[in-house]
Amino acid sequence: MIRVMIYNEYLHEQTEEKIRAIYPDGIHGQLKKALAADDLQIRTVTLQDLPQGLSKEVLDETDVLLWWGHMGHQKVPDETVDLVKQAVLDGMGMVFLHSGHHSKPFRALMGTSGNLTWREDGDRALVWTITPSHPIAQGIGRFILIDHEETYGEPFVVPEPEETVFITNYSGGEVFRSGMTWKRGNGKIFYFQPGHESFPIYYHPDVIKVIRNAIHWANPVCRTEITCPHVKKPLEGNADETV
Amino acid sequence: MIRVMIYNEYLHEQTEEKIRAIYPDGIHGQLKKALAADDLQIRTVTLQDLPQGLSKEVLDETDVLLWWGHMGHQKVPDETVDLVKQAVLDGMGMVFLHSGHHSKPFRALMGTSGNLTWREDGDRALVWTITPSHPIAQGIGRFILIDHEETYGEPFVVPEPEETVFITNYSGGEVFRSGMTWKRGNGKIFYFQPGHESFPIYYHPDVIKVIRNAIHWANPVCRTEITCPHVKKPLEGNADETV
Amino acid sequence: MIRVMIYNEYLHEQTEEKIRAIYPDGIHGQLKKALAADDLQIRTVTLQDLPQGLSKEVLDETDVLLWWGHMGHQKVPDETVDLVKQAVLDGMGMVFLHSGHHSKPFRALMGTSGNLTWREDGDRALVWTITPSHPIAQGIGRFILIDHEETYGEPFVVPEPEETVFITNYSGGEVFRSGMTWKRGNGKIFYFQPGHESFPIYYHPDVIKVIRNAIHWANPVCRTEITCPHVKKPLEGNADETV
Amino acid sequence: MIRVMIYNEYLHEQTEEKIRAIYPDGIHGQLKKALAADDLQIRTVTLQDLPQGLSKEVLDETDVLLWWGHMGHQKVPDETVDLVKQAVLDGMGMVFLHSGHHSKPFRALMGTSGNLTWREDGDRALVWTITPSHPIAQGIGRFILIDHEETYGEPFVVPEPEETVFITNYSGGEVFRSGMTWKRGNGKIFYFQPGHESFPIYYHPDVIKVIRNAIHWANPVCRTEITCPHVKKPLEGNADETV
Repeated sequence: MIRVMIYNEYLHEQTEEKIRAIYPDGIHGQLKKALAADDLQIRTVTLQDLPQGLSKEVLDETDVLLWWGHMGHQKVPDETVDLVKQAVLDGMGMVFLHSGHHSKPFRALMGTSGNLTWREDGDRALVWTITPSHPIAQGIGRFILIDHEETYGEPFVVPEPEETVFITNYSGGEVFRSGMTWKRGNGKIFYFQPGHESFPIYYHPDVIKVIRNAIHWANPVCRTEITCPHVKKPLEGNADETV
Repeated sequence: MIRVMIYNEYLHEQTEEKIRAIYPDGIHGQLKKALAADDLQIRTVTLQDLPQGLSKEVLDETDVLLWWGHMGHQKVPDETVDLVKQAVLDGMGMVFLHSGHHSKPFRALMGTSGNLTWREDGDRALVWTITPSHPIAQGIGRFILIDHEETYGEPFVVPEPEETVFITNYSGGEVFRSGMTWKRGNGKIFYFQPGHESFPIYYHPDVIKVIRNAIHWANPVCRTEITCPHVKKPLEGNADETV
Repeated sequence: MIRVMIYNEYLHEQTEEKIRAIYPDGIHGQLKKALAADDLQIRTVTLQDLPQGLSKEVLDETDVLLWWGHMGHQKVPDETVDLVKQAVLDGMGMVFLHSGHHSKPFRALMGTSGNLTWREDGDRALVWTITPSHPIAQGIGRFILIDHEETYGEPFVVPEPEETVFITNYSGGEVFRSGMTWKRGNGKIFYFQPGHESFPIYYHPDVIKVIRNAIHWANPVCRTEITCPHVKKPLEGNADETV
Repeated sequence: MIRVMIYNEYLHEQTEEKIRAIYPDGIHGQLKKALAADDLQIRTVTLQDLPQGLSKEVLDETDVLLWWGHMGHQKVPDETVDLVKQAVLDGMGMVFLHSGHHSKPFRALMGTSGNLTWREDGDRALVWTITPSHPIAQGIGRFILIDHEETYGEPFVVPEPEETVFITNYSGGEVFRSGMTWKRGNGKIFYFQPGHESFPIYYHPDVIKVIRNAIHWANPVCRTEITCPHVKKPLEGNADETV
């Protein structure tokens, strides 16, 4: 059983009728419903629940955290960012969705700005599988067709990824590294571009399949804090002993 | 002064009138002319000159080798492949162009097949700059527009690159990691997709600028064979001494 | 059930009394015995069985191939090397042990020489865990103590690894990146340094644990040949259709 | 001319007689003196000069920033950290020395804790060259011998580096990836372990040579802020135009 927490700021759906029509239960509600599976225990949390909703206790009981945010990025408390970063270093998996590229936790974990270029012309997107043997790409064909998506373009200011899993072709002409992985401490991180709030992208079976695969991939291999101990010589006394 | 050698198999230009019309002096002739600069000493060699044309002596006097091949890949002698691979391990830089993805030296250095998907529909290609601060991208804007190019698609079976410098969007819908770097031993390797023989791509100033930048980038920092010596303990006698 | 094949050239054990005393059933025999587990189906093959012993049919029924070779590297047939390389590109996992750094398949997959420096002084080796959250390091503490090992030193001529899992400190002063991973096509590769034939290293529980972990890690996520197809435009007809 | 700024917190040298005896002009003073060269313009700044001493204006006139800090890490103002991080993303090079692994700018750029293990037993350190062709390793032999150094041990909680240039063997048994590179945005980052304040390490010619090489390597290829613009379609109007 993987314990999944979905963070969605839940602002667009409450303030814009057009978005609410697509996601009447919020993006988190739709993701929870679409991802439902016997081996996943899924909870959700929104911006108004912070910081308590992502306290240390809650994060300790979270194996993989999904993050969807946009207009409320700056309202996320810094203490939440610090706790999320530490949980990832300890081993918690993390999946950043779409505009999450500009969220505070993403920037903090990448060490960059997360900047990119963008257009809102409802381009057709072809999300190409670059690494077919990656666990996150299993069950996906050569590409995922998304009829309309916000266009993200390069340069995307992130560290060179460990693996590039997907790259998107937009009909207007851009490319974007839309699926990439990194590791920070014990924790695995996946960024996945699809998911603009104006289009019903989280109803797309292949998009959901990728996110579900990512949850399984990011599920911690081990979870433990790596500290900075003052140690004895390795062969003197207990090798793991600290001074 | 960087000593550049351009290898072009020089077959299409001799057997197909349409190609000869574009490259009357061969692809190597055009590249030599377009790349000419005070700090580059440029020579050329073709398939019919092998193996002597790329002997150990010739490679020893080559700082950076460019490689364009296609229909004649299998005619390249294995001894040439071995010499080229060793020269790269010793420090020689290498720039593989277009269909060079299937050449014997490329496969030998990558350890993979170099496979990809392809179409010949004369798509419009936008070659996007992914890493604007890379030496190879200097002087290039957000993208290079190529009116007509053969389409290459993913998956491109190569090891995860050290740096992805360019990714191409084709008007038909594909993406392709069109500029990537790797290192093998002391030598630097750059692959660059543009350059189908049916289109006058090596007359495009930005394509030439990228190749020239790549020559400077791949110019060896040091050139020396790394052997497999039986050594003494590092602090006993001469540290560099072998048994 | 993971189908494991252990290749051991099986020469030292037959020609040197001292080695036979350590491995009376050969290194492959000891590895098979030590690795035995309910979820592993283990077979062995030696140099004298080649090329039939590693035919395409045999490799098709192998999920993960272990490779121990040394004095017989050059006797491995080139057709075996080609078949092994293709199997890895298709998805077969591979674990190279100790002097396998100089084997033909390792060099072919790395694209380098696999050179390093070496000493045979029976140094004490401390194999440090660099990436504690890697699946291959699970169950291993801060380091593995090996009382006596052949010393391997840097520079180790391999491509920059995807992950450095272990680095060894030798009492004589060297360091060596003793556990590294790469990917080639669909296949995962792990190199692990411990295992000189003169010392009973494959009786060490932690060494066996690492190899067992590596088998599980390298077990294919998917296995399929990635070819080089002439394709149709992605949105015309069947996206996966070739011309 | 490369404009170098050396940040040294300058606390140990003022509060501990033993340290002052080694570095009467401070670590920054010794580094400035030792690094002096015709093509370097070197300035220094200390903790008490912050935040003005590393204002945006000062950073704009800095090509490469060196950072030595230890007991004063927490006293570095957050605004300085933000300015330094942005300068790196824009292209400024950065060299973190020794205990700088725990500095705020290092943690912010890595996205990790920078944790490691440590001992103060004055071990002999052998700093091995892993990548002899790296620009930072030019002029360095197989290893640098440092008679006495603080011992740093793995795991070192940093993202997988782009290149591992040096790894150290300590006489007490540890290993440590002592020279690594990363890129963040347009900026290059090098971490170099040698330099404990209790030993005269910045008088060692090879240590100085590495730092000087790193300055040249980290000198910006280009320097420009990569923003997050709302763009037009690439082939409509000016490709670089924002909405």
